[in-house]
Order: sequence, then structure tokens, then C-alpha cells
Amino acid sequence: MLVNDLEQQLAVIRRGAEEIVPEEDLVKKLKKSLAEQKPLRVKLGLDPTAPDIHLGHTVVLQKLRQFQELGHQVIIIIGDFTGRIGDPTGKSETRKQLTEEEVLANAETYKEQIFKILDPEKTEVVFNSKWLAPLKFTDIIELAAKVTVARMLERDDFAKRYKNNKPISIHEFFYPLMQGYDSIALEADVEIGGTDQKFNLLMGRTLQKEFGQEPQVALTMPILEGLDGVQKMSKSLGNYIGINEPPKEIYGKTMSLSDDLIIRYFELVTSLPLAEVEKIKAELKQGANPRDAKMRLAYQLVKQYHGKEAADAAEAEFKKVFQKGDLPDDIPEVTVTLDMLEEGHIWLPRLLVHCGLIPSTSEGRRMIKQGAVRVENERIQDINYQLEVKDGMVLRVGKRRFARVVLK
Amino acid sequence: MLVNDLEQQLAVIRRGAEEIVPEEDLVKKLKKSLAEQKPLRVKLGLDPTAPDIHLGHTVVLQKLRQFQELGHQVIIIIGDFTGRIGDPTGKSETRKQLTEEEVLANAETYKEQIFKILDPEKTEVVFNSKWLAPLKFTDIIELAAKVTVARMLERDDFAKRYKNNKPISIHEFFYPLMQGYDSIALEADVEIGGTDQKFNLLMGRTLQKEFGQEPQVALTMPILEGLDGVQKMSKSLGNYIGINEPPKEIYGKTMSLSDDLIIRYFELVTSLPLAEVEKIKAELKQGANPRDAKMRLAYQLVKQYHGKEAADAAEAEFKKVFQKGDLPDDIPEVTVTLDMLEEGHIWLPRLLVHCGLIPSTSEGRRMIKQGAVRVENERIQDINYQLEVKDGMVLRVGKRRFARVVLK
Repeated sequence: MLVNDLEQQLAVIRRGAEEIVPEEDLVKKLKKSLAEQKPLRVKLGLDPTAPDIHLGHTVVLQKLRQFQELGHQVIIIIGDFTGRIGDPTGKSETRKQLTEEEVLANAETYKEQIFKILDPEKTEVVFNSKWLAPLKFTDIIELAAKVTVARMLERDDFAKRYKNNKPISIHEFFYPLMQGYDSIALEADVEIGGTDQKFNLLMGRTLQKEFGQEPQVALTMPILEGLDGVQKMSKSLGNYIGINEPPKEIYGKTMSLSDDLIIRYFELVTSLPLAEVEKIKAELKQGANPRDAKMRLAYQLVKQYHGKEAADAAEAEFKKVFQKGDLPDDIPEVTVTLDMLEEGHIWLPRLLVHCGLIPSTSEGRRMIKQGAVRVENERIQDINYQLEVKDGMVLRVGKRRFARVVLK
Repeated sequence: MLVNDLEQQLAVIRRGAEEIVPEEDLVKKLKKSLAEQKPLRVKLGLDPTAPDIHLGHTVVLQKLRQFQELGHQVIIIIGDFTGRIGDPTGKSETRKQLTEEEVLANAETYKEQIFKILDPEKTEVVFNSKWLAPLKFTDIIELAAKVTVARMLERDDFAKRYKNNKPISIHEFFYPLMQGYDSIALEADVEIGGTDQKFNLLMGRTLQKEFGQEPQVALTMPILEGLDGVQKMSKSLGNYIGINEPPKEIYGKTMSLSDDLIIRYFELVTSLPLAEVEKIKAELKQGANPRDAKMRLAYQLVKQYHGKEAADAAEAEFKKVFQKGDLPDDIPEVTVTLDMLEEGHIWLPRLLVHCGLIPSTSEGRRMIKQGAVRVENERIQDINYQLEVKDGMVLRVGKRRFARVVLK
């Protein structure tokens, strides 16, 4: 069932989008879709390399989810043909040649993950080898004849490499052509991708036109910054949140996000309705505590990938530890023997080192001076403090480091 | 049977050649060929567009003929696959799409003509659709991966067009790749072409290496100048000699050749042994009449395409008309009626106009002054000459214009 309101559809589709090229074609297509009550065909191509999806990948998937909620049809193309070719020159790390089994196994892993976001009922998953493998030389020549070398060399990475005399193999020109041909084969109305995909999305548009089809609309989504707020989210940079991570991790990592990215994350990687996002944005502008907004984001993300119960639990745990000053459930125990004590006492920094909470007594002195050391939830600020040790006593350094003394 | 003499083989192969790239590979291949008594495989690719072969085309064919005389195997590739594709953009006049029937018909016409030069017993004629049509996308990608865009853009015509922002369609990159793949399919040892083919011949070399084959030697032949001695020989420029032209035409056109091209033509388009060519060259240097050398060339060319008898006849005819002053066999007859005469006489320029030998009496006066007018082989130099007309009288203007009077 299509959402029968053009303006509402447009608002949802525009949410977080970088570019819609051209927007007037999208409007035309949406009008036609409503008039004929026929869903648009919205395409996303995925590389069949081993997938381990993090929030960065979900930006486009959330957009597809929104299209589904508006009543449209989503088509995920697994680029198995591309994957099975790999890079014949062997120079590209990202184009490793995969066996058919690897491609199929990766596709299954993909499906498991994307269906945490997409509605399987409104998602077609197809393999592009179906139409690419049977192409003959004459077909390929016909396809290649539609595009000029100059046009292809406009693509950012090609332009740079050509300018810097870095080799570009001719077969690399095929990848955009193949991706474009996918759009022809599927009669796509819209193709979604990151901003780095703009050239390829427009290639699909060009080729569809050349082959007598109504050209697709290219919708690009921003590349998500990682937790550091600077670099793009990526596994190798360690600034990511994986959608398969445990609730506590997702919650905790989200809480470490730069404040200035809170709204961007709400927009791009949550399914929270736009109106609510706008409300949070307004509250922040009026001086609300960013930590509260971040907690809402963390709760939302855990809920999306692990459900409401897990989100409630993660939130409760967070509040217990970091807000009420309550102790976490899993404090490591450290044995202290009597011979370490002098008349039942020990110099506090020495005990902190023994418990593994700090690396050295000089570091201990520094932490005590900073007011970061608590014993039984009481801050100690005397660096010469001689502690009277009791069994079960809880020591704490900073926000996260705890130890419970077991006296023997 | 191979000619069992490396130096002799090299001398014949070098005759008239522009470049042999690299010559040391040719020497190696020839040595191996002699050691194993295995002929080299020498390749020429022909476009299957309607062929009407002129001497310009025979430069490479003569070279192939020489290879055959040395005992090697010649392979003519009819580019039927290329022809059947044509130019999908429809922009190129030279790449019209041909039907299978057209390609086959053209191939037959080609064969008729090339076997006037080549020995059919030592010639394989093959169609490249045999190995190109079944190629799959993966094969083509593998092929294209071997060559970089920068390398391809080094080809003269591509380089110029790219620099001048003239479009180059991506499929145009396929033609050199296909030609190179032909060399792989045929395991060619040598490929022959005009100097304009150098890039494509070297592409074959590159690709064979990439596919683990011993790379072919590229042998380029000069582009033959036409009869004017300036432009390249071409039908559209009218400066050509077609190998299907009648003996008299071939002989006559050859006699109109610029003197400075005589030796070049001997070298490039006759099968006269190199030693004899060298002798003629020496004689010319010592002051021999170029016309005699040209007559020998004309005789040789008629002999090559119409046999010795036709050559003898063409030569005798030429001598009769242009050397001994004898009359040609086919002088047009022109009727002169008595009422045109005054007491049996007529002003010579008026008669010449009547006979269609000159356009006007003033032109007639000019020709008489120049000594270009003869009556019964006697030069007349009086512009007021009143000729007494007799039946059967022969008039002549310049070298070639004749008329015979029929008095009525």
C-alpha cells in the first residue's frame, strides 16, 4: 500500500539525502506511481565481499526502509558477477576473486544482516550474474558504445589516477557499465548509493536512456562519520558500531559519540520519525543536555538491532553505573592478603596498583589529586592516605575501573 | 620448403619495410624456424568492407608473397566479426554494419583479388568471428585487464581526438583488443600492416605476452604514394592503379608516375627480385632515361596482373604510339563534308575544332605555335595553314589526341 500523499513521500525521501538527481524526475515518478498505484522500483547494489555491517552501511539501508514504509519495492543486487571476476590484474585488494560458494555464503550473511533493517516481504534479492554472465561480445560492444572515454575519465578516482599517471586498466571501465546495465535489467526507478557512487548511479541513468528506458533517479546519501566525528566510519579505523555488536557495546559506543553528530545519527541511522528528530534538535538548541539526547540515540539503536527489552536493560545498566553512581553487576574481585598490610592498613596508591586499577603508584597519586579515586563511593583526595582494608570493599578509579577486595 | 639461408631471408623480409619491431625477435624466430624446419605464421588482417584492391593495398600483400616464397605460412584474417558489429554509434562511415551475406560476398571478392598475388596453397583464410563471437563477458574483462587506458590513448588517432575533445566511445578500445586477440587465437609469429597499424600490431605483441605466448614481430610497410607522388594512393583521390584495371590502363597510368617514385614502386609493388631492382636503381643513378625504367615497371605490373602476353601487347602498343610515332589502332573517325571546304581546302584550326581535338580555333592557333599539331605525322607550324583535305588523313594534337578524316 502506497502512502497516498506526495508531499509526505517527498519529505521522507529527502530526509538526510545528499542529492536527488534530478528531483523533478522523482516528483514525476512519484506522481505516476500514485496515479497508477504502482510502487517504484528502488535499487541498491552490494559488493559480495565478506560483509560485516556497521552503522555506516545502514545509512542507505535506512533510506530503503523508508521507501518500503512509503509502499515501494526494494531490490538488492548482490554483485556476484563482479565478485566472481574480481580484479584480473590482481592489483586491487578490494576486488578479490571469489568462488561461487563464497559469493553465496556472503550473500546469506548479508541477508541476515540487512533484514534487521529491511522488510523481507518488500525486498527482492537478485544476483547480477543472471543477466551479465550470458552477455556476448556484441552486446558488450553495444553497451560500451554508449559511453565515451572522456565521460568515464570524469569519475573522480579515474580522473585522479589518469592525471597522476597511475595505471587504469581498461576493464575497470566495465564496472560502471555493468552497474548501469543492472539498472536496465531491473528497470530501476531510483538507485541509492553513497556520495562516492554518484558517477555510477548517473551512468545507470545514461544507459537506461540510451536503451530506451525512462531513466532512474540517482539518490545519494552522505558518508557517515565515525564515533570520532572526523573520519568516515570504518572497521579499520576502529571508529565504528557494528549492528551485530552486543547491546551494551552499542549503547556504550554511542555514548562516546561527538555531541555535534547526535542529530546526524538520528537522521541517518535511526528509524525514529522525522518529527521526533526535529523535536530533539529543537530541544538541543534550547540548551537541553546533549547526554540525554545521546542516551535516547543509544537506546534507539539498541532497540533497532536487539529489541526493546535489550534497550531497556542497556539503559538501566548505564544509568546505574554512570548516573546514580551505583555499582555495576560484574566488578572483578582482587585478593589482598594480610601480610600486605601494616596493622590492617595499606598506602592507597599501592593497593590501587595491586588491584590492577592503575599502572604505578605515581599514576595513583595523580588520580587521587584529580579526585578520580573513590573507596566505597567516597572520594579520597589525600595522596598519603593509609587505608584500613575491609573484606568486600569496593575501589573505583575514574568512571569505569572497579575492583572489589577479597581479604584473606 | 624453407629457404635455408638466414641472411637471404632477412634481406627479402627487410625489402621496403618501414619497421621490424623488434628485429632481434625476428632473427630469433627465423633461426628457430630453420632449426626446426617449421614455417613462421605470418598474419594480415583485412576489413571486410567492399574491397576493390589497388596497388596501395598490394604493398602488404607483396610482403606476404615474399614470406611465402621464403617458405612461410600466410594467414589472412577477414575481420567478419568486426564487420558484423560495425559501429554501434553509427557515427563512423568506415564501420558500416554488414550482414553475414555481405561479409561473405566481400570475402569472396577479396580472395579473387588477393590470389592474384598470394599463393593459395600457402594461404589460410580465416574469419575472426570464429573465436571472437563465443567470448563471454568474463573473457573480455580478462582481456581488457591487460591494457591500460593511458596506453590505449597513446594511439595516434585516439590521442588527437582526446586532446581535441572529440568523443571516443569506449567500444572503440575493443578494436585493437580484438585484433590483438586474433594474434593469440592464431599464434601468429609476425603480423604485417601499414605504418598506420603499428599500434595495433604492437597490441597483439603485448597481449600474446600477457597470455603466455611468444610475442609476434610487428612488421610495418610504408603507405604507398599515388601517381601524383604526393598523396597516399586512394580511390577517392583518383591517383590509383586498380589491379583489376585493363592492361592498357595499368600501363598508361604507370607511365604517368612521378619519376622519383619509380624505384619505390619497384620495391613495394612488384615481385621483381631485389637484385634487379638494385640494378635499375644503379642505372638511373648513372643517368639512364627514367622513361625506360618506367616502361619496365609498367610492363612488370601488367605482367603481374594480366600475364606476359598482355604485358607484351601493352608495351608494343605504347611504343607504337608514343615512341615510334606510329598510330594507335583505335583512332576515332570524323566525317568532313565537301561543303565545309573551299576548293578542297580548310583552315587547319577550324578542322581541328570540327574533329573535336581542340575546343576553339584560338586554342588551335596556340597548339600550332607550340608545334603540337601534326597532319599525317608532319608537324605544321603555320597558324594560317590552309589544309588540302584528303580522305583517310590523320590529324594529331599533342601526344594522345587523334582523328581520322572521312571525306564525304
